[in-house]
Amino acid sequence: MQTKILPPTDNAYQYQLLIKSLLLSGARYEPDREIVYSDVMRYNYRTLNKRIAKLANVLSEAGVQAGDTVAVMDWDSHRYLEAYFAVPMIGAVLHHVNIRLSPDQILYTMNHAEDDYVLVHDDFLALAEPLADQMPSVKGWIQLTDQDSAASTSLPTLGEYEALLGAASDQYDFPDFDENSVATTFYTTGTTGNPKGVCFTHRQLVLHTLTMASTLGNYEGQPLLRSEDVYMPMTPMFHVHAWGVPYVATMLGVKQVYPGRYEPNKLVQLYQDEQVTFSHGVPTVLQMVIDCEAAKTADFNGWKMLTGGSAPTLGLANTMADLGVHFITAYGMSETCPILTMTYQRKDEFSQPMHDQMARRILTGVPIGMVDLQIIDPAGNPQPHDGEAMGEVVVRTPWLTQGYYREAEKSAELWEGGWLHTGDVASIHPNGSLEIKDRIKDVIKTGGEWISSLELESLISQHENVSQVAVVGVPDDQWGERPYAMVVPIEGTELTHDMLKQHLMQYVESGQIAKWAIPEKVSIVAEIPKTSVGKINKKLIREQVIA
Amino acid sequence: MQTKILPPTDNAYQYQLLIKSLLLSGARYEPDREIVYSDVMRYNYRTLNKRIAKLANVLSEAGVQAGDTVAVMDWDSHRYLEAYFAVPMIGAVLHHVNIRLSPDQILYTMNHAEDDYVLVHDDFLALAEPLADQMPSVKGWIQLTDQDSAASTSLPTLGEYEALLGAASDQYDFPDFDENSVATTFYTTGTTGNPKGVCFTHRQLVLHTLTMASTLGNYEGQPLLRSEDVYMPMTPMFHVHAWGVPYVATMLGVKQVYPGRYEPNKLVQLYQDEQVTFSHGVPTVLQMVIDCEAAKTADFNGWKMLTGGSAPTLGLANTMADLGVHFITAYGMSETCPILTMTYQRKDEFSQPMHDQMARRILTGVPIGMVDLQIIDPAGNPQPHDGEAMGEVVVRTPWLTQGYYREAEKSAELWEGGWLHTGDVASIHPNGSLEIKDRIKDVIKTGGEWISSLELESLISQHENVSQVAVVGVPDDQWGERPYAMVVPIEGTELTHDMLKQHLMQYVESGQIAKWAIPEKVSIVAEIPKTSVGKINKKLIREQVIA
Repeated sequence: MQTKILPPTDNAYQYQLLIKSLLLSGARYEPDREIVYSDVMRYNYRTLNKRIAKLANVLSEAGVQAGDTVAVMDWDSHRYLEAYFAVPMIGAVLHHVNIRLSPDQILYTMNHAEDDYVLVHDDFLALAEPLADQMPSVKGWIQLTDQDSAASTSLPTLGEYEALLGAASDQYDFPDFDENSVATTFYTTGTTGNPKGVCFTHRQLVLHTLTMASTLGNYEGQPLLRSEDVYMPMTPMFHVHAWGVPYVATMLGVKQVYPGRYEPNKLVQLYQDEQVTFSHGVPTVLQMVIDCEAAKTADFNGWKMLTGGSAPTLGLANTMADLGVHFITAYGMSETCPILTMTYQRKDEFSQPMHDQMARRILTGVPIGMVDLQIIDPAGNPQPHDGEAMGEVVVRTPWLTQGYYREAEKSAELWEGGWLHTGDVASIHPNGSLEIKDRIKDVIKTGGEWISSLELESLISQHENVSQVAVVGVPDDQWGERPYAMVVPIEGTELTHDMLKQHLMQYVESGQIAKWAIPEKVSIVAEIPKTSVGKINKKLIREQVIA
Repeated sequence: MQTKILPPTDNAYQYQLLIKSLLLSGARYEPDREIVYSDVMRYNYRTLNKRIAKLANVLSEAGVQAGDTVAVMDWDSHRYLEAYFAVPMIGAVLHHVNIRLSPDQILYTMNHAEDDYVLVHDDFLALAEPLADQMPSVKGWIQLTDQDSAASTSLPTLGEYEALLGAASDQYDFPDFDENSVATTFYTTGTTGNPKGVCFTHRQLVLHTLTMASTLGNYEGQPLLRSEDVYMPMTPMFHVHAWGVPYVATMLGVKQVYPGRYEPNKLVQLYQDEQVTFSHGVPTVLQMVIDCEAAKTADFNGWKMLTGGSAPTLGLANTMADLGVHFITAYGMSETCPILTMTYQRKDEFSQPMHDQMARRILTGVPIGMVDLQIIDPAGNPQPHDGEAMGEVVVRTPWLTQGYYREAEKSAELWEGGWLHTGDVASIHPNGSLEIKDRIKDVIKTGGEWISSLELESLISQHENVSQVAVVGVPDDQWGERPYAMVVPIEGTELTHDMLKQHLMQYVESGQIAKWAIPEKVSIVAEIPKTSVGKINKKLIREQVIA
């Protein structure tokens, strides 16, 4: 079809959606607002902008060229925030190294991304030093330290970060370039094969930021981040752009607190000292925070907390409600920048007492603006939004990775039929809320029916003596698969297979699950295997059970 | 420079920023929220989406092709909102006809835009009928009526809007196309020459909407439009997309009230009946609203009111504060989609008593996100942000017209040096607020110095007997130009040239203006000439004085 497209006037400015645009407004609005790095450093937005220019000068003078990749191995810090801007703004690619991976995996990702320069924190020197010889693409290292003097290292570093910034000019004329230039890259670990690299462009990150800002600010049922809030991430900055919030926070000019390495007591201390109002984290991290020593005397009332990454249990949600935390769920993944959906409540919903809202708040929410989302059956047919029908979640938004880096076959699978396939199975409730039922590969296929392993986990978690639970499907000669549950009791309480069976029978009687959904196989254990990002490692559990 | 650009996976979806994306979220969030058209019609978001599909079918079946231009001659209505979406979404261009222009100018604009189809309200039949023969490009007319049956007309219409929609399917598979396709066009009237056409693309409107949504929602000092608000425009929908708010409101799913023809008593009635919380309008319209009969018994407390288009006087602002209105100023123009800047107040500022905030609130505010803005001297040098230095406002944002339609020379002037020239002279205060001092052509150049005509107007307006005032520069043999003031007294009060002189002397004594800024020439009049959009017509005043 032939729409009307006009050639622009010759001298009209072709505004590209670049990350530097996100830096315009924060310092104009709130020049005196602070960026805080744990108990190590604090400065204001005027200084942030200058430091980003300084870092750009340091990198350029070190030899970083447009198109190069600059890796960061650091905890959440002001330095990481500066790199979020400075690296893409000089036309280079920021590689958020997942320092929770095994050394072999880290080596694999850094070589696969062809990192040219690496910013490495003292805490990762012992990890990096033996790998350095095996990274032929790396041309230089910059050392990051929180101490008065940097630790000694065998790495050939260009110097220490603060010393280098101290000597650099705070002026940099950031260039314009194509908005489709890659800005960031990082790796997602599936349960099989090597980590897969995803890439995000300037355009994608700007559009994610703008839509996210409105989503966090415009909705009265979920007001998460507005100009007077104080932000502290509890999802690491190496993990899907800390869900994209640092870019939003910087655009808005809000106070930001970066906590360094996540230590629950320190997180609670910073929350209190810096008057944090908004954070986000996966359920396991949040559980650690509310269970820690410092939490016993802390007042969490009013803390706005976005969760995601895996489904929070109703048990955790109710604990949050008891504490006065405004607990909200979002859904997304590494491939999606990440945000796709977020809790949305209408006035009659958010006006209810908090405890009555929790069953809705732990659903994964409603697709946010600009997101086209469907649930489809294996033949690709969209399923009804009746809260019952299940289908795979497929999406189109302006901020989806356009493939896996140098993985043509997996890229084609990801984008089968022109929709990004999340690999998640969900239903959509009549009120628009998406409920993730399971990973397609974790759905338990038994006797021709599907059982959601997550639903079983949720029901088991509601037993008062259950601390953690994982359910997987294991091979069965008669039924194809049968559910198997691994359960951690709350310390000092009793828990038996029979008690769990009896607990689940109430849900059979109420019609919530079928009788054949009750697992015959249950293990009571002290710990459940986790992945590097703190999610339950179902692949490993399956292997352990079968072996 | 060579940044890293990766080819997308073959089957990856290339998401274009199209207006249809803005329609995804409203009905998902708030399917039962209402769109209200005066006392004529009301329906919910589910119906809105269906009616947009119906209108698309009506237009397609009438023969509208991608690239065609569809003109609308209507007051603010649900129909106009539907056209805001349906016309661009089928790949056509929506021409918002400025029905306040003279018949000759309207004819000029409709021929210049090469309108293919016209949606015309009964109220404009008398205007359109004699012009129809002189519009060779027009292939068809659709009649809009608020009555049970449409008025009789000599125009060869395809039918009446509601009847046509009633017969159309509510399913339409809206196509994808290039986001740089023109979505809207309209004409801006300068003080000289023919009206000039500006065009906005899908991409520009989506980016304006996203940034605007965040600006209206995220800032605690200016919370204008959030999910529980009720929106009613008082800037016509034919005027720069009603400042872009209908797109924002629809994306958010808020209740929208369209008032038809602006009649002050009806606006106040709708404000009360529909519990409107957010509106916007030029100062003259707002003045009419608060001065009308119905206003005498209305409670305006809490009404959030965005003004712009021309500078509000401190007098109007203080009246608004007396009424409890949250009065906020924005700045932009037809060429800029329109928003460039908006009031931003820090916590220590918005915590003050309302009357103490007004002097700041009537400044034009701080550039919003994504806006790059400078004030430059005639040589192009950026001026300091000291609240004193004046310069022309030049901008870069992702939503600026890329030229005037078929006006190469004026387009090149608009974009001189790669910045869009607003033609406005301003200073920027140390707190970041832009203060528009004047139009470059209205600055009074006297004895080698500049006097802002707007500043003089503001000072004169603070005399208790002054209702309205206009100041222009008129030729002077000795000084080049001298200021001339035209003043309307408040009915039943006395006002003389001497009283005004004496009033202005206090500002000379306080150092706010120089003695030579006091006009020797003053006319006390019953009315000040206005343009079609209600702004003071300085060109006409100058002509009258010289003649």
